[in-house]
Amino acid sequence: MSHTAYDELCRRQLRLHRLNHLQSIAGWDQSANMPSKGNEARSEAMAEMGGLIHQLATDPQLKDLLARAEQEQLDEVQGANLREIQRSWRAANALPQALVEAKSLAASRCEHAWREQRQRNDWAGHVDGLREVVRLAREEARHLAEASGLSLYDALLDQYEPGMRSTEVDRVFGDLRQWLPGLIQAVGAKQAKEPTLEPQGPFPKSAQRALGEDAMRLLGFDFEAGRLDESAHPFCGGVPEDVRMTTRYRVDSFLPSLMGTIHETGHGSYEQGLRRDWLGQPIAQARSMGLHESQSLSFEMQLGSHPAFVELLRPLIVKHLGDQPAFESANLHRLMTRVQPGTIRVDADEVTYPAHVILRYEIERPLIEGQIEVDDIPALWDAKMMELLGLDTRGNYKDGCMQDVHWGSGLIGYFPCYTLGAMYAAQWFAAMRREMPDLDQRIARGELGAVFDWLRERIWTQGSRWETPELVQRASGETLNPAHFRAHLQSRYLGA
Amino acid sequence: MSHTAYDELCRRQLRLHRLNHLQSIAGWDQSANMPSKGNEARSEAMAEMGGLIHQLATDPQLKDLLARAEQEQLDEVQGANLREIQRSWRAANALPQALVEAKSLAASRCEHAWREQRQRNDWAGHVDGLREVVRLAREEARHLAEASGLSLYDALLDQYEPGMRSTEVDRVFGDLRQWLPGLIQAVGAKQAKEPTLEPQGPFPKSAQRALGEDAMRLLGFDFEAGRLDESAHPFCGGVPEDVRMTTRYRVDSFLPSLMGTIHETGHGSYEQGLRRDWLGQPIAQARSMGLHESQSLSFEMQLGSHPAFVELLRPLIVKHLGDQPAFESANLHRLMTRVQPGTIRVDADEVTYPAHVILRYEIERPLIEGQIEVDDIPALWDAKMMELLGLDTRGNYKDGCMQDVHWGSGLIGYFPCYTLGAMYAAQWFAAMRREMPDLDQRIARGELGAVFDWLRERIWTQGSRWETPELVQRASGETLNPAHFRAHLQSRYLGA
Ligand SMILES: [Zn+2]
Ligand SMILES: [Zn+2]
Repeated sequence: MSHTAYDELCRRQLRLHRLNHLQSIAGWDQSANMPSKGNEARSEAMAEMGGLIHQLATDPQLKDLLARAEQEQLDEVQGANLREIQRSWRAANALPQALVEAKSLAASRCEHAWREQRQRNDWAGHVDGLREVVRLAREEARHLAEASGLSLYDALLDQYEPGMRSTEVDRVFGDLRQWLPGLIQAVGAKQAKEPTLEPQGPFPKSAQRALGEDAMRLLGFDFEAGRLDESAHPFCGGVPEDVRMTTRYRVDSFLPSLMGTIHETGHGSYEQGLRRDWLGQPIAQARSMGLHESQSLSFEMQLGSHPAFVELLRPLIVKHLGDQPAFESANLHRLMTRVQPGTIRVDADEVTYPAHVILRYEIERPLIEGQIEVDDIPALWDAKMMELLGLDTRGNYKDGCMQDVHWGSGLIGYFPCYTLGAMYAAQWFAAMRREMPDLDQRIARGELGAVFDWLRERIWTQGSRWETPELVQRASGETLNPAHFRAHLQSRYLGA
Repeated sequence: MSHTAYDELCRRQLRLHRLNHLQSIAGWDQSANMPSKGNEARSEAMAEMGGLIHQLATDPQLKDLLARAEQEQLDEVQGANLREIQRSWRAANALPQALVEAKSLAASRCEHAWREQRQRNDWAGHVDGLREVVRLAREEARHLAEASGLSLYDALLDQYEPGMRSTEVDRVFGDLRQWLPGLIQAVGAKQAKEPTLEPQGPFPKSAQRALGEDAMRLLGFDFEAGRLDESAHPFCGGVPEDVRMTTRYRVDSFLPSLMGTIHETGHGSYEQGLRRDWLGQPIAQARSMGLHESQSLSFEMQLGSHPAFVELLRPLIVKHLGDQPAFESANLHRLMTRVQPGTIRVDADEVTYPAHVILRYEIERPLIEGQIEVDDIPALWDAKMMELLGLDTRGNYKDGCMQDVHWGSGLIGYFPCYTLGAMYAAQWFAAMRREMPDLDQRIARGELGAVFDWLRERIWTQGSRWETPELVQRASGETLNPAHFRAHLQSRYLGA
């Protein structure tokens, strides 16, 4: 046998990569194309494939191959790839199959029931199912913590943000918590004096679609390596060689779809920008959920809601939707940056969004660590919502602790990634401005390549070569620093 | 172990069925959606999956399981399913893996080169690649013949039309060959006296698409279990629970797309009509390529070009494309039934099409049996084209023996299915008319359910329960009888 254990591991990763390609396209198709009666067969086919992939990822021979590869002479890139192969092997092997199946079943039951329970504001009906999912998530955390040596919550967080720890989250969220409520109030007072014109629809779907595609072109999206389609819940799927973005349209309002499309274009550009020569190996993959969100928020917030970018967007809007007073650039920018505390996370603006995330982090962490129970959630939610955003959610489970399906579907440890992403994005643009003092003028001149080149070099082509903290340090010259996010919000929303 | 060998075989078939589901959707997506840069990764992913499916289909344990299942007590349906499991096992195991790979490589090279060679009319450049593909197809036939005990050509034909033999093809094509050239001449003379108005375009794609979907609804297509999209080469793909049909549009002409869509709706209805309680097992699959074509031609020719059906179609055409003199029903029917000998098979009408198929059958059979060689093809082609259709193709390889890619891509033994399908379709409608003497009045009243119910009961829900000849006998009360096709053409085209 002339090839090394490392080569054999790479060969197996390539096989998994190819099979996951089919899963990814089938999943995209399920959301974007599939008629209703196809769902059962599709779910069965994808579950069969999932089982097969799991079987390949837990092949008993892997343990020995990994041990042998550790003894082989590897260069730095190979070493990083081996680290990532080990990470995914640990993730696939840490959990007993019975637990994976029990959690998947409990989560899918809880999620299915949630759809109607939420509409009926039925917390009492929801709580039993949620309790079972949380029980199994705790068990999952215990297994992952044992395998990794991390704390319970960190073991879950590490799945989405490798290398990130709750001590670090505490540090940056603690900072945010100090100044965010005051900032929200100050922005509210300032914006109350700025009247804003509402765009007058209808805005036909076909025109919105053409506008979204033009915005994607402006942002450098490669349509020979991806598409834009529709789905009920927008997402960015597919594979790096063929990115499948989705959006949804409302005929009475075009900004949600346009800004959503710009957001997903950030995710899509990250995928399209991953290195081709590593493709098929774990090291080629996007680093983490927080890093991914830092790309979508770089596109949507840092660049997309930049006053100079709005000047670039305006002619496209007029081209596809005709002109009207509300499309005047300053008014468009006011529409894009309107701040309004509200109970619903997914509708939140850039300034209030972190409050929703902090609230969830402060509940899900003690929940996993056993300091609180599922029955404690509503009272905690109400108190924190009043404290952070001044909103009363008592008795309003529907728009309170039942608004998201993350916990019910077993996704715990994920929420911090949204706000970590917003902070990373602010940090990238702060670093860009240090290195390119004329960045804002370049954006105003439509020279967006400067932004994309920076992101490509520092983030996209780095894939999973470094753990998240090291990537952040290498890209921006410092560790995660919430001061950049604060400065960004103050500058954009208070002109300070 | 409490379950039987037969149960275990069924379990494995279900797994293959589910994995093939993903292959099918990925293949459809490749034709209907995929941007160009996604092709390499998609091809690799599908090849990986193909290898995995082949590995499962040739698992050495299967031989023993099949032998044990043969000894078990099975009911009639289980017995038929076991026969089909054996058939697919033989097909997967008859060929050495090296031969499969060599043929796939030679075919894909030959096919790729053919695209430009055809444009350049370059037979001399094409012949070497084709010779290699034919050499490997002969070897394939030898292996399949050894495994099945059939003759060389029959072993290939049996892959597409199980139970059909060349003696039977000789019998029905021999009959056809007698009267077809005379019929073509007579129809030509008759139609020369019937002036036809040409529809005046342009016909926007979106209107044609809406028209096609309305025609599909008229034909009972279930849009909750399928879709219509676009691709360069129309086909019917997907899975029975989620049929993916494609068409293509020409802005200057709407009938090719409309009739093509009606054709594919026949294929799609067969798939949608397969029994759900057998799904996942080979017995649930469509019987054969000829049977499949009998459904598309039942829809396109028997029903779709029926003068009473044209009356149902006309209001849909007017609804989507507006009215014009050429849309008068009798004129539409003349447009749909225009007969014109031409060199190109895929453009051929219902009457001249069989001549193209007979010609190919009379060349590919001796080619596989070694009585002729690849270099003999052009002269034979020219002679038969003159004899059957009175057309001179000498030196015109492009529109002669290089027009189709079937042989170059290694598909030999398939061509007869097109005309077998046309004959079966005529036989179905002859049987329907015997059982329902008012069939034509029902069609005129728009009561198409009578047709669909007959096809559903006799063909769709039978799946692969019977070998083709038995299915034909059971469905229509007699074996394949070319007299029905002749009577259909005489009645429709000569009013006799
Ligand atoms: Zn996002
Ligand atoms: Zn067909």
